[in-house]
Amino acid sequence: MAADTPESKETARLETFSDGVFAIAITLLILDIHVPPPGGTAAPNSLLPALLKLWPAYLAYVISFVTILIMWLNHHVLFKIISRVDNRFLLLNGLLLMLVTFVNFPTALLADYIEHPDRQIAAMVYSGTFVITAIVYNGLWWYASRGYRLLDKSTDPALVRIITRQYMFGPVLYLAAFLAAWFSLPLSVAINAFLAVFFAFTGSMRTGART
Amino acid sequence: MAADTPESKETARLETFSDGVFAIAITLLILDIHVPPPGGTAAPNSLLPALLKLWPAYLAYVISFVTILIMWLNHHVLFKIISRVDNRFLLLNGLLLMLVTFVNFPTALLADYIEHPDRQIAAMVYSGTFVITAIVYNGLWWYASRGYRLLDKSTDPALVRIITRQYMFGPVLYLAAFLAAWFSLPLSVAINAFLAVFFAFTGSMRTGART
Amino acid sequence: MAADTPESKETARLETFSDGVFAIAITLLILDIHVPPPGGTAAPNSLLPALLKLWPAYLAYVISFVTILIMWLNHHVLFKIISRVDNRFLLLNGLLLMLVTFVNFPTALLADYIEHPDRQIAAMVYSGTFVITAIVYNGLWWYASRGYRLLDKSTDPALVRIITRQYMFGPVLYLAAFLAAWFSLPLSVAINAFLAVFFAFTGSMRTGART
Amino acid sequence: MAADTPESKETARLETFSDGVFAIAITLLILDIHVPPPGGTAAPNSLLPALLKLWPAYLAYVISFVTILIMWLNHHVLFKIISRVDNRFLLLNGLLLMLVTFVNFPTALLADYIEHPDRQIAAMVYSGTFVITAIVYNGLWWYASRGYRLLDKSTDPALVRIITRQYMFGPVLYLAAFLAAWFSLPLSVAINAFLAVFFAFTGSMRTGART
Repeated sequence: MAADTPESKETARLETFSDGVFAIAITLLILDIHVPPPGGTAAPNSLLPALLKLWPAYLAYVISFVTILIMWLNHHVLFKIISRVDNRFLLLNGLLLMLVTFVNFPTALLADYIEHPDRQIAAMVYSGTFVITAIVYNGLWWYASRGYRLLDKSTDPALVRIITRQYMFGPVLYLAAFLAAWFSLPLSVAINAFLAVFFAFTGSMRTGART
Repeated sequence: MAADTPESKETARLETFSDGVFAIAITLLILDIHVPPPGGTAAPNSLLPALLKLWPAYLAYVISFVTILIMWLNHHVLFKIISRVDNRFLLLNGLLLMLVTFVNFPTALLADYIEHPDRQIAAMVYSGTFVITAIVYNGLWWYASRGYRLLDKSTDPALVRIITRQYMFGPVLYLAAFLAAWFSLPLSVAINAFLAVFFAFTGSMRTGART
Repeated sequence: MAADTPESKETARLETFSDGVFAIAITLLILDIHVPPPGGTAAPNSLLPALLKLWPAYLAYVISFVTILIMWLNHHVLFKIISRVDNRFLLLNGLLLMLVTFVNFPTALLADYIEHPDRQIAAMVYSGTFVITAIVYNGLWWYASRGYRLLDKSTDPALVRIITRQYMFGPVLYLAAFLAAWFSLPLSVAINAFLAVFFAFTGSMRTGART
Repeated sequence: MAADTPESKETARLETFSDGVFAIAITLLILDIHVPPPGGTAAPNSLLPALLKLWPAYLAYVISFVTILIMWLNHHVLFKIISRVDNRFLLLNGLLLMLVTFVNFPTALLADYIEHPDRQIAAMVYSGTFVITAIVYNGLWWYASRGYRLLDKSTDPALVRIITRQYMFGPVLYLAAFLAAWFSLPLSVAINAFLAVFFAFTGSMRTGART
């Protein structure tokens, strides 16, 4: 952890701004779950089936929430070993934040189209967003870690190698979910859900490596 | 309060992120109160009755606002005696934040269905959300406090016992509101309102115990 | 300004949470300005008149934005001389935040009803919200300043008296706007707009008194 | 960078509040991209064309996101060399935040009207918002830098001159986009997009001058 220099203040402020965007993006997801209109379900005993029919919205909400949470945790780990930022890093980070914010749209799309004939398109847009996000994450990390450009010099090279290897899985695994969507929507969604849980639990290794 | 170590910075950042989610979730509640469409009330003297008819939305807004505020205060007390976090705590905390964010949906549901034949379903979803949230809160606390796993070592054991006992009331009381919804919506809503006020005022004991 | 004690950390965290709610509430106001539906204005040269017809929404947006900004500045001044918080203060502050968040609803109401026969009701709800907010502000201040309960002991008593006197104007002036709404909507809105500008510029005295 | 005085705390808090508004405004942009209603595209193979037809929304989203991000970066640079704030600066900054928040509306407008006969009006409102924002930015900077009113005294006068010169380009260039909208919407949008990219990359010079 760098001392309290202007550079570390700069980094801290970028981190705070990014955290704000993550927190807002993750909270806005709830706006994609719409209350079934009471007018359309005026008959008694119509609300429970109407709520159950919203299962795609709940599912998309939970997967996207966990996925953004994992992205935030990864971002967090990144900033623990970054000691300064430059203009290109700011732009790459801005691109990442744009993608994180964008997740809201494919989440709503997946929820609305999961039972529609074109559902595989919705699932591909959903997984495709994560493919691109994972690629940008790798780009961000490569830019920062290449020759320790922005890293704290005391960072353990073994940790850098571990993170580099772990990050490379992201695009490949989300690409699998993307391709699976063409054949089977449930499989694609299942891969996304599995990845969210998987990254959530393997995160312990990563942060554990710091302690 | 732990010294300014990497661990306390880690904890501070999680707290800031959580605070952001709480602040956004509590502020988004207002979006559930919809202005009555002017077209539908074009006759003079139609706005006042239209505004009065929105009372379920105001009521749900106030109860949910106070309940989330209390959750934030509890979260706050928790983080005062937690000195470090680990990956599982991050995930449990993420689950809690997901539930806090989710409150928006049952709030809108209760407001829209309070006079509908299926209102008891809406009230059960509303109280049920708080039952689950209270259980997760207990899980978070048990995980952190068990064997002082994540607690500051200087924490008074008496305080730990008090919090443990107080937290256990949450699930039970919200379960009462949940069950009451089946027989009487007003009773269920009244219990929720009472709990919000009750926890607001008994909170003084808890924070008082620190001073 | 108190030293870096647990109490000042407590106060700082409440301030940060409150700032978050203010920032979100002020930014959400923009969601009340709706793009005129292109379908309804498909004829050429229809957009400009449609945009001009939105003037009540712009007006309500600007007045509410400035008013919430002033409330934030006041809140800010308050926290500069408060050195600790207790449970009741937390609740009063929570009530204040609920009202700040609520402003979104009367703003949308005023925008939608400014040319409706019931417009004076909309204007009364709008000003009435500020009357209640101003009263809660006074309550918050009285609670904190009474016998220097929560104030930093080094606070100049003259400053306390100045703030007490200034705060008392709020409820009275907003009450004037509230009553004026019954006779003349433009007058009521003009008073609200004037108060926003007036408080914005007289704020200099208040903060100036600190330097 | 000023020492840790009451004045610098004051500045820090204004910066944090502003950052919050920027973060929320930039994240809310996603709400302007609406999922095409599944009912309207029930036929198979209808979703992909429906998604492609949303290109104006994606385009407006990306340009506005990058533009607000650049504004945030500029704001950031400003606050690095400002060591104190006064009431007028608070108001000018509030005006700037109001415009940043407002960007949401012309973004939605441009997205909805890009193929409408009145599209040049939408593009003029869009660019016009940036003209006004750039003028307010200049006003904020002039107010702060005139006679080093609010600047840290150790600021390099060469840096002040560079910023002054760079800022003056903003209103002129956005005015060009505004005027171009009358003749050609694509040209106007292209200028806006070019400016976003241009300012993103020339930002390096500016921050580089600090190092």
